Amino acid sequence: MSQSNALAEAYKQTNYQLSGHGRRNIQILKESINDLNELQESDMYGKGKIIEDFQAKVAAYLGKESAVFFPSGTMAQQIALRIWCDKKQLRKVAYHPLSHLEIHEEDGLKKLHHIESVLLADKTRLIEMEDVLNMQEDVACLLLELPQREIGGQLPDFKTIEQISSYCRNEGIMLHLDGARIFEILPYYKKSAVEICNLFDSVYISFYKGIGGIAGAILAGDKNFTNESKVWKRRHGGDLISLYPYIVSSDYYFEQRLDKMNQYYEYAKEIAELFNQCFAVSTLPIQPVSNMFHVHLSISKDKLETLLTSIYKKTEIGFTSFVKEKSEESCYFEISIGDAIVKIPKEKLKKAIQMLNESMEENHN
Amino acid sequence: MSQSNALAEAYKQTNYQLSGHGRRNIQILKESINDLNELQESDMYGKGKIIEDFQAKVAAYLGKESAVFFPSGTMAQQIALRIWCDKKQLRKVAYHPLSHLEIHEEDGLKKLHHIESVLLADKTRLIEMEDVLNMQEDVACLLLELPQREIGGQLPDFKTIEQISSYCRNEGIMLHLDGARIFEILPYYKKSAVEICNLFDSVYISFYKGIGGIAGAILAGDKNFTNESKVWKRRHGGDLISLYPYIVSSDYYFEQRLDKMNQYYEYAKEIAELFNQCFAVSTLPIQPVSNMFHVHLSISKDKLETLLTSIYKKTEIGFTSFVKEKSEESCYFEISIGDAIVKIPKEKLKKAIQMLNESMEENHN
Repeated sequence: MSQSNALAEAYKQTNYQLSGHGRRNIQILKESINDLNELQESDMYGKGKIIEDFQAKVAAYLGKESAVFFPSGTMAQQIALRIWCDKKQLRKVAYHPLSHLEIHEEDGLKKLHHIESVLLADKTRLIEMEDVLNMQEDVACLLLELPQREIGGQLPDFKTIEQISSYCRNEGIMLHLDGARIFEILPYYKKSAVEICNLFDSVYISFYKGIGGIAGAILAGDKNFTNESKVWKRRHGGDLISLYPYIVSSDYYFEQRLDKMNQYYEYAKEIAELFNQCFAVSTLPIQPVSNMFHVHLSISKDKLETLLTSIYKKTEIGFTSFVKEKSEESCYFEISIGDAIVKIPKEKLKKAIQMLNESMEENHN
Repeated sequence: MSQSNALAEAYKQTNYQLSGHGRRNIQILKESINDLNELQESDMYGKGKIIEDFQAKVAAYLGKESAVFFPSGTMAQQIALRIWCDKKQLRKVAYHPLSHLEIHEEDGLKKLHHIESVLLADKTRLIEMEDVLNMQEDVACLLLELPQREIGGQLPDFKTIEQISSYCRNEGIMLHLDGARIFEILPYYKKSAVEICNLFDSVYISFYKGIGGIAGAILAGDKNFTNESKVWKRRHGGDLISLYPYIVSSDYYFEQRLDKMNQYYEYAKEIAELFNQCFAVSTLPIQPVSNMFHVHLSISKDKLETLLTSIYKKTEIGFTSFVKEKSEESCYFEISIGDAIVKIPKEKLKKAIQMLNESMEENHN
């Protein structure tokens, strides 16, 4: 067994996990439908009370005219960008070099929609107002991801978003929000979802990140936009006869967890502080601005995997199931706080992170 | 309320329905997961025991090397055709003018994949060997839909499929099966799924038609083909973090209904005979070759809707929730037999169809 596999296996065997809401198993589905009336009718190809009610509810929550439920964010976002490109008759959009569209979608945007990407900022930092001002090419749409997941979930100042939004409106550039984790950033900004979404022409949100549903996404905007998105949803093969298993579970966990985002955020800051006390370990950002952050360590990926595997076995606490290489002598992993954290006895957790500290010191000597 | 809406509403209120497996409500999901172990792990982006086991099981059932679970047939089939077009470096495929790809997918194949369609045969009949021989253009792939749903679920002779298959292999044309309803045609052909699929390079099957699942599809072929299909599945936004709600329900109803296809077929023939005894009514085909058939009536759509609405209210039996116009003075509807038929007392059913006969006669006079 490779060291990576051993780590993943040891993580599975732990009693407690730092990230997430607990194991992703069939119980998640069972719990979410348990109290539903079994006579409630399925949606039918995007129509019916069960889907329309949820779409209306989320549209209101986001302050948008209309919303459409999608099986995935990959599908929803490609379609949003395509609609804006068609509107502007320009197949070019701007986003961060580590946008989900650029690194996790097998180039769907390019291969299916023939849309070119203009990459703003560089991989190590957020898009700032200056990057937008200095853009060398015309684009139909600018996509902002809040928080920027691949760099630890960093966030720009709210003022920056306001400036970018007002600039884009003046310049006729459509502004789209990759808000997969929008719920998770409200406590930091001390804003409502409506206040944030007001700055954007279209918004995508996800139901299986902070919300902890099974899968599913919403795309919201004005009525023309969402009507067009339904046509593309069918073209993509996303207009399923029944999406209700995702809808009812999204709704269930939306209701359960929406009010917990502040709690997750406070935990994230507390846990990050513990990691930052460890030798040759620092979090990105140093102080989290949402429920998530990255833990960077000056040690090779291989060595950290061995070391974590041992810590998991001794403490029954899992930090992460996988580690990403940064350089030969450094690596990092992601923490995303949810309900699971509450179950870990604090002393046990402190001991586990203290064990990481000691192992890092030993490794250095 | 329009006459069409009145019909749909009256259909909903009936105690018995001719088509399908009963109402599509949340009970379908509840029943299918009731006995599952809640600790069973979710699939993760196409990986994990729950998805891999089912894919292997269906691949074996179809006699193909490999299979991939998709959220929808629309997605699966566009991708199959794209892979074959890329392989042949030719963006052209042939299929029936009433193929799902041509009439139900908002031109996804053309808009997303820039693949042109060559239409074989005409809207009123099946593709025959001659249509393939006389094809004026080179194509990468030929798609056959068995049964041809939009013309009442007709089927070619098995010999014709064998001839087309052998011709395509000689000519280097890839042959794809739209087998959404493959289970439903096995009793007529007296063949196994393997014997049919052997004639095709790739096969798509659906789990919510004869099988009565919630949604979901399988695309099967050789390992290279299915590996490529996974990349496109991600591009389309179909590689969800969790597809298990569709997988477990597909598996559940697959096990439940696979052996009932002969029973559905026998019922279909019996019911079609009753309709054919009515005045100005005939089924297409006259004798069904699967669980499905169309009922054609020499009466305007509007008038039939009024007439059916009244029959539903009197008999508590629903034939269909909607009627399609054929011409000003003729229309038709589809029957697709499943578990629901068993619940209808035979005398009640005969009386309802007799009532249709009388109403059609009255309408004529």
